Amino acid sequence: MSGDGGDGGNRAYGRKAFKRSRSHFADRITADGRDGWPVEPGRYRLVVSRACPWASRAVISRRLLGLEGALSLAIADPVQDDRSWRFTLDADDRDPVLGIRYLSEAYDKRETGYPGGVSVPAIVDVPSGRLVTNDYQQITLDLATQWSALHRPGAPDLYPPALRDEIDTVMAEVYEDVNNGVYRAGFATGQREYEAACTAVFARLEQLARRLERRRYLVGDTITEADIRLFTTLVRFDAVYHGHFKCNRWKLTENRVLWAYARDLFQTPGFGDTVDFDHIKRHYYQVHTGINPTGIVPLGPDLSGWLTPHHRQELGGRPFGDGTPPGPVPAGERVPARGRP
Amino acid sequence: MSGDGGDGGNRAYGRKAFKRSRSHFADRITADGRDGWPVEPGRYRLVVSRACPWASRAVISRRLLGLEGALSLAIADPVQDDRSWRFTLDADDRDPVLGIRYLSEAYDKRETGYPGGVSVPAIVDVPSGRLVTNDYQQITLDLATQWSALHRPGAPDLYPPALRDEIDTVMAEVYEDVNNGVYRAGFATGQREYEAACTAVFARLEQLARRLERRRYLVGDTITEADIRLFTTLVRFDAVYHGHFKCNRWKLTENRVLWAYARDLFQTPGFGDTVDFDHIKRHYYQVHTGINPTGIVPLGPDLSGWLTPHHRQELGGRPFGDGTPPGPVPAGERVPARGRP
Repeated sequence: MSGDGGDGGNRAYGRKAFKRSRSHFADRITADGRDGWPVEPGRYRLVVSRACPWASRAVISRRLLGLEGALSLAIADPVQDDRSWRFTLDADDRDPVLGIRYLSEAYDKRETGYPGGVSVPAIVDVPSGRLVTNDYQQITLDLATQWSALHRPGAPDLYPPALRDEIDTVMAEVYEDVNNGVYRAGFATGQREYEAACTAVFARLEQLARRLERRRYLVGDTITEADIRLFTTLVRFDAVYHGHFKCNRWKLTENRVLWAYARDLFQTPGFGDTVDFDHIKRHYYQVHTGINPTGIVPLGPDLSGWLTPHHRQELGGRPFGDGTPPGPVPAGERVPARGRP
Repeated sequence: MSGDGGDGGNRAYGRKAFKRSRSHFADRITADGRDGWPVEPGRYRLVVSRACPWASRAVISRRLLGLEGALSLAIADPVQDDRSWRFTLDADDRDPVLGIRYLSEAYDKRETGYPGGVSVPAIVDVPSGRLVTNDYQQITLDLATQWSALHRPGAPDLYPPALRDEIDTVMAEVYEDVNNGVYRAGFATGQREYEAACTAVFARLEQLARRLERRRYLVGDTITEADIRLFTTLVRFDAVYHGHFKCNRWKLTENRVLWAYARDLFQTPGFGDTVDFDHIKRHYYQVHTGINPTGIVPLGPDLSGWLTPHHRQELGGRPFGDGTPPGPVPAGERVPARGRP
């Protein structure tokens, strides 16, 4: 969940250690509707920022599973203001489906006076305009398992039952040391706290590089949720975490295995076609004035390498298992040229 | 000259463009003593910070020319306080030769109430304790040409008369776009100013890479002052300019030609043995709180590559011309292990 930028909900400022708060709204949208929110085509709207790694998981899953027609997408401005995520990329600064200017309006409809932060990803019930969930850890698992009746033909199984224990273990390590580890490094307020986080980031990345040296994907021989979660951090690594968050022992481009792994996924339909480097860079560098007071956005890094051959297919693997790649990106959802390599 | 860290002398804060001020004290120490400061062994003390690229030029020249015995060296703490450069690395926090705690005391002895910044490199007259010069552009040229009676046997000619026009032209371009260009990028307060500076940095580096593709050194076939001045920026590039100053289109390690050129010089006696990466990183990241408010010093980059083979000798060239490399670093001047790759 990305709310880290001044909304106060996801960070403890002024303390030594960065703490990521739990999602406050954890209702689930399920096939059986047990929480009152049954899976229905066209009923819900997924609100994201393309800048945010937690939201980007859901954007990728939605593409891979072919849920674009069933679950519509709202893309917030990558730069929040003091009322947090806003729809200033849309005409009249309003989301055309929800009719709201700020995501906080959907939070307010759900719980009046909610004092916490406003974060993405968020799923909003379109008829009522109420927030259903901002539970970034659960949303993608439910897209993979609860929304299956609406998946496209040929959709992959991103969370296969036989592999869930292994996927969960890998994801827990990746979360602690990588997904959230880069934030602990970047938002550290003390040298010791920073060094512990940064050291853990690279130790885990080096362990993952060893794991991926001879296998194409993290678990099994197909793309799973574990790959999606590692990818969303890796794709941001050189653009923002390396400099802005001081995770600078090496660039992703300098790690042969992880760089090839990340390029392989980037070039797989459903991954790279969701990535907007312009949104990513502007969000981190302009919002976190506590670590970049000038708000200046770097010109680098050179992104052209993302499209170079990765040769990972030589390791075998079946990206979509018995399924097929997703089709083209819907016309209204294409990433603008300025955000692409 | 490095004074950029709160002394107010070398930057114009609150304006759009970073301006490097001229040195205020530009007396020259010459063979004929025309400014009242004749070259004499043991009379002067060179005050530097190993963090500072402008001061590091003088440290390298002094080593290459074998002036260690004639011109003693004072090394300031890489982190200034509000009174600027200080001798807190020495016993009792005093320079053992000059007996002062702050470099500003030598400035005060030269001009009472001098309102400008205190910068390194500075040369101080030991008998009187007075600052002679802080003219970073002239000091190394004078070491090369005016101090020749005191050079070691086998010292190279770093500023050969037949090549001075070409050396001056290259150095002017390197100064504008590289040496000072990284500062203009890093201290920019506006996006446009930053982008102009950063673009110029990389355009010039790419032009220099083309120049150095088939020739070992910048001018002629030996090391000259031009190489020293490019080296002092390149050696800091990945450690501080890439992240801290946002010069991040690529790392030096990603540019095949310049990385090999920089390693070649680093591994040449007189260059790498003067470099203290610990001083470099702590100075930039701890002093410039306007761009790094937390003062946290990154763990990276991995420095081990500096000692890897560069293969530049295949291009020919005679590093020291008809001369020889300098001998070992004097015992008291060795860079501590924590500052070395």
